[in-house]
Amino acid sequence: VKGNRFMKIIGEKINGTRKHVGQAIKDRNADFIRTLAKDQVEAGADYLDVNAGTSHDREGDDLVWLVETIQSVLDTPLCLDSANPQALTVAIKATNKTPMINSISGEPNRLEHIVPIAAENNCPVIALAMDDKKIPESSAVRVSIIQELLEATRQAGIPDKHMYIDPLVMALSTNTQSGEVFFDTIRTIRKDAPETHFTAGLSNISFGLPARSYINRAFLTLAIAAGLDSAVLDPMDKELMRALLAAQLVLGHDRFCRNYITAYRAGEFSTQ
Amino acid sequence: VKGNRFMKIIGEKINGTRKHVGQAIKDRNADFIRTLAKDQVEAGADYLDVNAGTSHDREGDDLVWLVETIQSVLDTPLCLDSANPQALTVAIKATNKTPMINSISGEPNRLEHIVPIAAENNCPVIALAMDDKKIPESSAVRVSIIQELLEATRQAGIPDKHMYIDPLVMALSTNTQSGEVFFDTIRTIRKDAPETHFTAGLSNISFGLPARSYINRAFLTLAIAAGLDSAVLDPMDKELMRALLAAQLVLGHDRFCRNYITAYRAGEFSTQ
Repeated sequence: VKGNRFMKIIGEKINGTRKHVGQAIKDRNADFIRTLAKDQVEAGADYLDVNAGTSHDREGDDLVWLVETIQSVLDTPLCLDSANPQALTVAIKATNKTPMINSISGEPNRLEHIVPIAAENNCPVIALAMDDKKIPESSAVRVSIIQELLEATRQAGIPDKHMYIDPLVMALSTNTQSGEVFFDTIRTIRKDAPETHFTAGLSNISFGLPARSYINRAFLTLAIAAGLDSAVLDPMDKELMRALLAAQLVLGHDRFCRNYITAYRAGEFSTQ
Repeated sequence: VKGNRFMKIIGEKINGTRKHVGQAIKDRNADFIRTLAKDQVEAGADYLDVNAGTSHDREGDDLVWLVETIQSVLDTPLCLDSANPQALTVAIKATNKTPMINSISGEPNRLEHIVPIAAENNCPVIALAMDDKKIPESSAVRVSIIQELLEATRQAGIPDKHMYIDPLVMALSTNTQSGEVFFDTIRTIRKDAPETHFTAGLSNISFGLPARSYINRAFLTLAIAAGLDSAVLDPMDKELMRALLAAQLVLGHDRFCRNYITAYRAGEFSTQ
């Protein structure tokens, strides 16, 4: 599914909080990281999320090493996943292409220290619909947090088209309206701020439930219909990527059905 | 997925235009028909579509035989699939439970002869958004056909809640907006006539394309979001039924996630 024309896919797998990845970072195992990067791009990633997952004082060095290691074999843009302004600053300097920043939120500390870095470096930025680490239950509160956030980012000189709003996915197992809250948040913000993008990590929707992959696929399909145009996901999950291709086709986003048919011819539907 | 609380599933498999079924009808092979009926109900069918698929003069006898054969082992309501008023009249007399009628349309002949049968017998009825056998390209024309149809059925005494509107599914391979036309038709009619139901045969959406089952699942998921609350489908297609359960869960229709979890515990997710 290389060169997907529609959704921006942010590959989630280079994350140091995952055991094997954390070990590879500690061991400076470049081959491991390069393979993880190449496999995701081959499977359709447009950006690669890079999360060192290490302690505050090591994070800068580890992020720079990850950036340089990936860039030694790929020119895919990166999504620097950190709340640490110092680490972000040195990692951005190490990038060859303008990276995305993951993430800001209504939390005053992130607003104050990370927004200026994104503005100075002209970085697209993921913005979480939360405040001081609480995730609001209602769509209305999430919308108002995002509206305040957009005022701050506009004032800092970040254009709306660089904003990737993450409405935040809560588990259906704790509230069966979690999907609707997410979709409503997108639909409301789209009306006010039509230039913004929307992104999300998907899998939390199915937390605590069985047969999770079916729930994740239905959620992705319905979120695209609501306006999601980016996602942080595992592009090597073939069933999820097939659902994504099919959703875009059915929603009329796939001119001449070309992307779907091309993916089929490339064998994307032929293996588990 | 027995006793699905949400979508009304109309099992499509007892259709004489399918080769083995046509042969079984000809041979009066009751075991074959009974098995096909029981398997579909076991898999989640709320209604069983019954289409003799035979010539006009045989259709009444064949439908009555099918009705009696199925009713000898099941009390699931039937959906009599015929455009033949005489055949419908005798078949309705043979049923133990009020059947659904599949179908009427804007075609004057069906309007004149089948609407009164549905009204007299208090039957729910599937209404196709077409006129004289042409399927309109646009949503606007389909909506206006349905609006005229609803005037006629109301005048005949059929309440809106007995109407199952089929907006008609056209292939994405001939028009990539076919999905959107379908969803728009549902959304528009729902506003005017909130008591009506919506149904469809799904699989035409993917006609002429590869990897059809993924397209059918995405279409079902998005159609439920638009308001589809019934479908004529193969309930033995496990992946389709799983997609249906997941869609209803993500859309907040599954209180306490109970239906999804119950299906999981019943093994609905454990086999191909």
